[in-house]
Amino acid sequence: CPCPLPRGDCSLSRLLRRLLSARRSLEICLFAFSSPQLGRAVQLLHRRGVRVRVVTDAQYMGLQGSQIGLLRHAGIQVRHDQENGYMHHKFAIVDRRMLITGSLNWTTQAIQNNRENVLVVEDAEYVKPFLDEFERIWEEYNPINYRFF
Amino acid sequence: CPCPLPRGDCSLSRLLRRLLSARRSLEICLFAFSSPQLGRAVQLLHRRGVRVRVVTDAQYMGLQGSQIGLLRHAGIQVRHDQENGYMHHKFAIVDRRMLITGSLNWTTQAIQNNRENVLVVEDAEYVKPFLDEFERIWEEYNPINYRFF
Repeated sequence: CPCPLPRGDCSLSRLLRRLLSARRSLEICLFAFSSPQLGRAVQLLHRRGVRVRVVTDAQYMGLQGSQIGLLRHAGIQVRHDQENGYMHHKFAIVDRRMLITGSLNWTTQAIQNNRENVLVVEDAEYVKPFLDEFERIWEEYNPINYRFF
Repeated sequence: CPCPLPRGDCSLSRLLRRLLSARRSLEICLFAFSSPQLGRAVQLLHRRGVRVRVVTDAQYMGLQGSQIGLLRHAGIQVRHDQENGYMHHKFAIVDRRMLITGSLNWTTQAIQNNRENVLVVEDAEYVKPFLDEFERIWEEYNPINYRFF
C-alpha cells in the first residue's frame, strides 16, 4: 500500500502491524525516535528473537523523550553518526524484504499532528538500495571508528 | 533509479536534471525549501510555461534563506498550512508521472551534509496517492479557507 499515511491512531496501528510482522530481522534508520508505542513494539520484537539493529542521529538521540536509551537498555544494538550533518533517513526494513520509508519520524508529534507520508514497498529493486545504505551506515558508525577529540 | 541519494553536487545535479525535465506541470510539497539552485530551477520552469504549484510549511517559510518569498515574487502559486503540526512532506511530482520523494528537504545543508534518501518512482500505483494528497492539501490550504484570529 503506497498511500500517504493518514494521521493519528490509524497510521500508528498500520505502522505497528507492519513492524510486528517481522520474524527474523528489523533494520531501523531514523533521525528521531520518541514514540513510546513504537519503542515498545521494537523491544517486543527483540525479546521474540528478531535481530534488531538501529541507526540514529547523535544530536536527536539525547533529547528528552528519545527512545534510544530505552532500546539500548533493553540490549538492542544502536549506532549513531558523529558528523555535523544529520543522519536524516526515516526508514525501516522488515525481514530484508519490506521497506517502510517516507517523511515520518517515529515521534508522537509527527504521527498525531503532521502531514506525513509513508511508503511501504516490497519490490527488491527498491528495497535493495536501502539495505545497502543501511549496511554502509552500520559499518561507518561502528564504534571502533569513533574519533575522540 | 531508486538509489538513496549520494551527498553533494552529484545528488543536486541529479535532482535538477529530473526537475528540469518537466514540460507541463510541477507539484512541489516541501517542509523546507532554501536551496538557491533548486529555487532558480523552479523559477526557470515557471518562465518556460510549466504550471508550478508549491505547498510548504508556514513555520519554515519565514526563516532566513527560504526560497518561498522569491518564488511568490516570481509569480509562482504557493500555499501553506496554518496548523500547529508541520507540513512535513518532501515530495515533487513532474508532469503528473514522476514522483520524487524521500527524506530530503531542499536545503543546501541537507544536500551537502546530511545522510538522506530520494526515491524516484514512475509507477502510477505509487504516484497517484501522492498526486491525490497534493490536491487534497492544495484545496485545504486555499487562502479562502484561512481563519483569522
